[in-house]
Formats: sequence, C-alpha cells, structure tokens
Amino acid sequence: MNPKLEPIFGRRSIRRYTSQPVDEEDIQSLLEAAAAAPSARGCYPARFLVITERSLLNSLAEILPYGSMLKEAPLGIIVCGNIEAAHAQSLSYMLQDCSASIENMLLAAHILGLGAVWLGVHPRKERIEGIKNLFKLPESILPVGAISIGHPAEKKESRTMLKPEQIHRNQWL
Amino acid sequence: MNPKLEPIFGRRSIRRYTSQPVDEEDIQSLLEAAAAAPSARGCYPARFLVITERSLLNSLAEILPYGSMLKEAPLGIIVCGNIEAAHAQSLSYMLQDCSASIENMLLAAHILGLGAVWLGVHPRKERIEGIKNLFKLPESILPVGAISIGHPAEKKESRTMLKPEQIHRNQWL
Repeated sequence: MNPKLEPIFGRRSIRRYTSQPVDEEDIQSLLEAAAAAPSARGCYPARFLVITERSLLNSLAEILPYGSMLKEAPLGIIVCGNIEAAHAQSLSYMLQDCSASIENMLLAAHILGLGAVWLGVHPRKERIEGIKNLFKLPESILPVGAISIGHPAEKKESRTMLKPEQIHRNQWL
Repeated sequence: MNPKLEPIFGRRSIRRYTSQPVDEEDIQSLLEAAAAAPSARGCYPARFLVITERSLLNSLAEILPYGSMLKEAPLGIIVCGNIEAAHAQSLSYMLQDCSASIENMLLAAHILGLGAVWLGVHPRKERIEGIKNLFKLPESILPVGAISIGHPAEKKESRTMLKPEQIHRNQWL
C-alpha cells in the first residue's frame, strides 16, 4: 500500500472514545470536509445535523441497533438529504452525494486524529422514522447515515479490503 | 479551512489531462483506496471495471452525456455494485458503499498527483443499459458511477462548498 495514501488506508471504524469533547474548530472542519465532496450537477443536497447534547446522543443510540457507542461519544452527526434539492429529485443521486460527504467526514476525522464510525440509517424504515420523530425533520429531509465521533480509545491497523476478484480489466470476463 | 485537510479540499473535478498514461502501480493504489472504504455489514459489493483500451474509452464517452473528456483520458474506472453481495441485497446500501469507494478513489487520485472526475451513471437507464451492453455485465452487476482519470492539464483552487444553512445543531429548527 502506497504510504502517501495513509489518510485513506488508516481510516478505520472506531467505536471507543475517551471522554474528551471534540473542539468546535474540528466540528467545523468536519463539516467543511463533508461539503467538499462532489455532488451530481452541483446540487449539494446534503444537510448536517450536529448532535452534542448527551440526552439526544443517548436517544439516537436507542434508535440505531448498532449505535450503542453513541452513549460514550461526545459527538454525533447525522447526514440527511433534501430530496427536493437533489439532482432530478432522485433518491439515487441523493444517496450517492450524501455517501460521498459521509466518507469525506470519516477521512477528515482520521486526519484530525479523531475516531469515527458510520452507522447505517437509510433504507431502514424504523431508523428513518425514529430519527425523523426525534429531531422533527421536515417531510423532504431524509436521514441517510449517522456518524459517531470522538477522540479514539482504540487503535487499528491501516488496511485495504481489495480482493483480486473485484477487479475486471477492459471486459467483464 | 484546516491545511491538514488539503487532501480533501484540494480534490476538484479535473476534466483535462496530458497524454501521459497512468502507471500500473497507481491504478493498483486507486483500487486499494476504493476498497478501503467502509461497507454496510462488511459486505463489500463494489466491483471495479478498469478501462485503458482507447476504443472502449471512446465508446464509454459516447454513452455518458458529460463524458467527452474520456476521449482524452488514459484511464476510466467504472464502479459497479453486485446487488446480490450487498447487505440485505439493498440497492440503497449498494449505492452508499459504491459511492464511498468512488470518493476514496477521487481523493487517492488527487493525493497521487492525478486528476479525476466522477461521471454519474445510476439511476439513468440509458447509461446503465449502454454500459451493461458494452461490457456484457452479468444481470446482478449494476454500474453506479464512472471515473475519468489522467495526469492533470488544469489546476483548480482548494475549496469547500459548505453553507451555514446546511448545518443544524441538536434540533432541526
């Protein structure tokens, strides 16, 4: 693995955090990174719900089946899409744009020395409804994914999961 | 913008390239970066169709309405999803996973000194069918997005597109 790409290979799913809060400056940087992702036809449908209130993080942990680490995390960010703002009002483009933003935010967290993990929301109806109710989201706003973030209390090795059978060259077979 | 995050802010859509081919080593690094993205429940449904044959790049340029730069690009990579391999065989999870892989590849290209641009495929039926026919993709393989890559012949400033109205804190309103 090319060591120049450590910002990418070194990003791992980090689920354990110290009690140290995330600086406001770093929160702003995470959002700037998210919004630096490309977007179909420059529509930028992604919206960012930043959660630092303990009671809300705990409630979110109850909604997400694999989200128990949010009870220890100082920061959660839910990336939502505004379907009306998406190119061609397409769910597919909205999901693609929001996912690129989430990935940028995960990489930015790693580069800033933070740890983060992507928690799936869409397309699970009960998670979508739970979040829509908890945060009173408008009709056109759809939660896509949540990110749990903090200062890491675990370390993982850099890696890629590439397998030769994922690669095709100039033709499929 | 935090200068540590230049790998993210410096990635821009690069549509003009020199005639220099992309090294095989860099192609491998791009794929390793793509496969280092997280995937819902570790299913890794992304598949990578690497295109270096001039006639195929030209044919792909004809299929994608905004893909004319592929006629000059030495490298194209189509990221496809295997819907059968995706978590819960869900199109949403498949699109999210493939999009995170595409974003990783765009960032890796930038870090390696290459230039790249994401060309939308899914959900446009005529683009999906055109690619499926050209490369004889199996039924379960769905093209999500294409990337045009080369050595950059244009330069763009680092940036973020973040607008304050995209941000919500602890509640929507």
